Amino acid sequence: MLFPKQFDVIVVGGGHAGTEAALASARMGCATLLLTHNIETLGQMSCNPSIGGIGKGHLVKEIDALGGAMAAATDEAGIQFRILNSSKGPAVRATRAQADRILYKAAIRRRLENQPNLWLFQGACDDLIVEGDRVVGAVTQVGIRFAAKCVVLTAGTFLDGKIHVGLQNHSAGRAGDPPAITLSARLKELKLPQGRLKTGTPPRIDGRSIDFSMLTEQPGDLDPVPVFSFLGDASQHPRQVPCWITHTNERTHEIIRSGFDRSPMFTGVIEGVGPRYCPSIEDKVNRFADKDSHQIFLEPEGLTTNEFYPNGISTSLPFDIQIAAVQSMRGLENAYILRPGYAIEYDYFDPRGLKASFETRSIGGLFFAGQINGTTGYEEAAAQGLFAGLNAALQVQGKEAWVPRRDQAYLGVLVDDLITKGVTEPYRMFTSRAEFRLQLREDNADMRLTEAGRQMGLVDDIRWDAFNRKRDAVAREAERLKSSWVRPDTLPASAAERLLGKAIEHEYRLTDLLRRPGVDFDAVTEVANIAGVSSDVSRETLRTEFGPTLADAVIEQVEISVKYAGYIDKQIDEVARSAHFENLRLPDDLDYSQVAALSFEVRQKLNKHRPETLGQASRISGVTPAAVSLLLIHLKKGRFKGFAANDRATTDAAA
Amino acid sequence: MLFPKQFDVIVVGGGHAGTEAALASARMGCATLLLTHNIETLGQMSCNPSIGGIGKGHLVKEIDALGGAMAAATDEAGIQFRILNSSKGPAVRATRAQADRILYKAAIRRRLENQPNLWLFQGACDDLIVEGDRVVGAVTQVGIRFAAKCVVLTAGTFLDGKIHVGLQNHSAGRAGDPPAITLSARLKELKLPQGRLKTGTPPRIDGRSIDFSMLTEQPGDLDPVPVFSFLGDASQHPRQVPCWITHTNERTHEIIRSGFDRSPMFTGVIEGVGPRYCPSIEDKVNRFADKDSHQIFLEPEGLTTNEFYPNGISTSLPFDIQIAAVQSMRGLENAYILRPGYAIEYDYFDPRGLKASFETRSIGGLFFAGQINGTTGYEEAAAQGLFAGLNAALQVQGKEAWVPRRDQAYLGVLVDDLITKGVTEPYRMFTSRAEFRLQLREDNADMRLTEAGRQMGLVDDIRWDAFNRKRDAVAREAERLKSSWVRPDTLPASAAERLLGKAIEHEYRLTDLLRRPGVDFDAVTEVANIAGVSSDVSRETLRTEFGPTLADAVIEQVEISVKYAGYIDKQIDEVARSAHFENLRLPDDLDYSQVAALSFEVRQKLNKHRPETLGQASRISGVTPAAVSLLLIHLKKGRFKGFAANDRATTDAAA
Repeated sequence: MLFPKQFDVIVVGGGHAGTEAALASARMGCATLLLTHNIETLGQMSCNPSIGGIGKGHLVKEIDALGGAMAAATDEAGIQFRILNSSKGPAVRATRAQADRILYKAAIRRRLENQPNLWLFQGACDDLIVEGDRVVGAVTQVGIRFAAKCVVLTAGTFLDGKIHVGLQNHSAGRAGDPPAITLSARLKELKLPQGRLKTGTPPRIDGRSIDFSMLTEQPGDLDPVPVFSFLGDASQHPRQVPCWITHTNERTHEIIRSGFDRSPMFTGVIEGVGPRYCPSIEDKVNRFADKDSHQIFLEPEGLTTNEFYPNGISTSLPFDIQIAAVQSMRGLENAYILRPGYAIEYDYFDPRGLKASFETRSIGGLFFAGQINGTTGYEEAAAQGLFAGLNAALQVQGKEAWVPRRDQAYLGVLVDDLITKGVTEPYRMFTSRAEFRLQLREDNADMRLTEAGRQMGLVDDIRWDAFNRKRDAVAREAERLKSSWVRPDTLPASAAERLLGKAIEHEYRLTDLLRRPGVDFDAVTEVANIAGVSSDVSRETLRTEFGPTLADAVIEQVEISVKYAGYIDKQIDEVARSAHFENLRLPDDLDYSQVAALSFEVRQKLNKHRPETLGQASRISGVTPAAVSLLLIHLKKGRFKGFAANDRATTDAAA
Repeated sequence: MLFPKQFDVIVVGGGHAGTEAALASARMGCATLLLTHNIETLGQMSCNPSIGGIGKGHLVKEIDALGGAMAAATDEAGIQFRILNSSKGPAVRATRAQADRILYKAAIRRRLENQPNLWLFQGACDDLIVEGDRVVGAVTQVGIRFAAKCVVLTAGTFLDGKIHVGLQNHSAGRAGDPPAITLSARLKELKLPQGRLKTGTPPRIDGRSIDFSMLTEQPGDLDPVPVFSFLGDASQHPRQVPCWITHTNERTHEIIRSGFDRSPMFTGVIEGVGPRYCPSIEDKVNRFADKDSHQIFLEPEGLTTNEFYPNGISTSLPFDIQIAAVQSMRGLENAYILRPGYAIEYDYFDPRGLKASFETRSIGGLFFAGQINGTTGYEEAAAQGLFAGLNAALQVQGKEAWVPRRDQAYLGVLVDDLITKGVTEPYRMFTSRAEFRLQLREDNADMRLTEAGRQMGLVDDIRWDAFNRKRDAVAREAERLKSSWVRPDTLPASAAERLLGKAIEHEYRLTDLLRRPGVDFDAVTEVANIAGVSSDVSRETLRTEFGPTLADAVIEQVEISVKYAGYIDKQIDEVARSAHFENLRLPDDLDYSQVAALSFEVRQKLNKHRPETLGQASRISGVTPAAVSLLLIHLKKGRFKGFAANDRATTDAAA
């Protein structure tokens, strides 16, 4: 039967990609259907119980800046929050949270159920309706036909999913969930460029069998407790709990090696390629044979369960090896495994078959998002879902696609990487993938994206009002610092020494003082007070005016933009200049394994592919723009005779 | 691989039967494994969001009296509680609650995760390990072998499950869950007596699309709010919400009839027999063609969801018919369906192949419980699970099986019915199935069963202490009433008239006064006070002594046992006498459709089977002991010439 309501957009799949896609399309006013095989599993965290991390936290903040759900749901469900790299520069600082699985699912489902313009429907999608070269709907397993102008497919690991534990395997979409076999076959008929990938998950441990007294406690950040959403508040968080740390040891590694002959990875049973950056424990033991220990985080799965997620031992080894390996670790000697670890193989589609909007090149109106595009990670999936959902909605509205630039968002980097480079292994976001990463910080995700989101209809009035208050306040404060001057005669040397490290010799703008190392907004404010300059503004007055959360965010924004302006400008120049080296020839005798600045993976890849030019090197999957810059620096050091001449010659030729 | 730990009992399946079985076995000290295909679905309510009702509530109280989880979990999850038949006799009074699905699942999972001696493991069971004529373990889908002395199989609707919506069908264990096909095939190889049944569920409706102003509100009982567990308290309940009532109408029925040609039931696509007492709406429209309206309850699925469960329109009609039928009802004109209704067919095993302990006759150590035995309903499943679990544990401990008598528990009736009569359709509990139903009340389930449960190790110290306090208090009060006398000279006529309806003419025990219609404990207490007899005891003093909840329960128990003692004695006599009629011949020309006292179903069955004797009639599935009594009364009315003589002759012959 044809369902009586005609939809604008159908989103197939209710994971992280599907939920953000459906919410985005609905926020933009499109009549949207979310088709899921099981309403009960909407928003389920299939693997680790955590959101964020370096690169990933950046994506979550961008999703939030565009009105998405992931950050806000995490604020409601997060049982441990940390700022990673908090001692490093703001570009690589990132938020990470452990989430209570049940609370997270509830937070997502509540949003989905109550989103205007969004209809949920439970039914496995078995087919797409294609007319000519355009998709016009989707068909469920029981033959219900839904018509729509666009379809966003977010099939995760379900397409022809196959679970492996040791040399045993069976069809499944996820442990306990049926696979999507019929849909996989239908998509193959459509001749879309397709391949197989694999991912994995560790065994889960009953917390009652863990000896925590033998483990290192890892508490979250408690003062203050971080928040994820720009609209979030720590008071939304449930009770906070610690994680725990243990380690693999030589015996663990021996046990793991003893299972290699029954490993589906090493015996060729698994054909799909796994994520290099989220490797299984057997892969780590195999690749890093000289390392005799790996750190394992024991993460609580929630406040109401005893289950723990041992982050770092994803595995598809036989279950007897899983037990022995787990029990070889300190504190886990009596560990009881509730769910075996496993690997899952699934279909993905070469993202080079997508337009920049994530619409497939071959079938109009059909968008792909999430793991189906060859990525890994909740955050990568959610960002793509939001992106595909908004572009489907824009197409329905007869508008141009929206594609953020690489210097505008990690989302821009993600999309550009996928559609231009494709993938050879599940793609994961890193800050090193972004050549403009000093601009692409968590703290300014709203400044980079919320206005665009508002224009598209993704951002509601509450967020827009809050954003404008913040933006206006930042602009006002920045302007005030720029236009306020301090003179040596109004600032006693003793005060200057205390607050700025030394006396000032001539007139300075407050901005210039703030740029100094070790000088922060509060110090500059005190300087201004003593000098009798804009003495009416301080953190206290801003807190009174905007409330403490917003005031602190405004001050952070002002501090970062002033302090790092120089680095950012320099980076832009550097990236522009490095474009000149596109055709630069690389020495034939260069042994990349000796280039210490490069990561182990990049060295491996360069030695394997032996690119002829720097441009070729930069397009090898996994060789990041940052790596290219590092390589250039290495070459410039002059160890390679003739490089400079070559350099000049190329530059001249290009000129 | 063989799992290193040897278990006493393995329970396969994590629904209502499986969870009670696993908890019971573990409470009794047996090392128990609960093997489930998905830990996330433990305790899931697959169909209606409610627990209890007439006959079913009785089972829940019995489960509770034996230390089971269902009543206590309902107290934590129930969002509406009602006492059904509250104006009728105590035997047919029953508790019924709407449950928030998410809270119910959480309450069950917490109990399972924290039960000592119980281990959970996630893995689909694909095979049993059988040695000779005994089961010795179970094997998961990924080849993990678990050894145990006994296995309790609670496969629900999963064995070779097939979902039907209209003429479309597909394999599934439940909507969104994979079926158990391999295990079904393996059980067939074991040559157990097997058949197919079907059950169904209605479409689910988005509450935002319901016009509640057009519906009748049905609030729960609010003063007091009932509780389910003998240890429960209304303060455990979450927020209480109402249900809503609408009705099918002639147009609804027309629409439904218009789908008969595409109904899998009426076109023979479904081979399994469905539950006569929980029929699909198409079955109701077909069988009761003269009825032009059926009442439909719209039940909230939880506090945090908009979903509503329309109780009364279970259906496997095509989805277009489902939409039209739903939207033809008042208040549902714009109803949006989130999940289609469907029927599911599945394997069951003839319970006549079970011993009275629910161990299979053919394979030692293998127990079956729940829908696999041909029943329907959460409560029936949970009661069987508890029963099979405790008997598996008793076998492991080398003890005799425990089988409650028909006059001891509905559980006894359920077990006896199943193993002696088998089923021809999914078996559901009714009070009319119990010939001793005046004894088998909700209020005395603890008095009937908790001591037995304690002896087996099912009842913990907290429950046992509470039970003893109650039992002792009841005994003390009953004894006090029996031994206290009131004389006409100590009770003024005016007081007697006010409290007892008339003056007393001679000396009475308080017990005798309480037995009078319209006289309750409080009245007798006041009589005693005025007459100066045991003036120190009243509801108030008992509340002070025991707390209000226990005091009221004690008083209720005393009232019922005194007031109904006569009826109960009479019933026992009646049932004993009716046993004489086993060989009584039934008139050949009796038109059962004219016996108004019998239910429509019983009349149909008797007309179909035309039993020769009353004994034969009593063994037809669905002909209850109560129906046999009613038939006897009808025959005794003498409309049938020669019946009395025949009666005498038979009785004489039997003597």
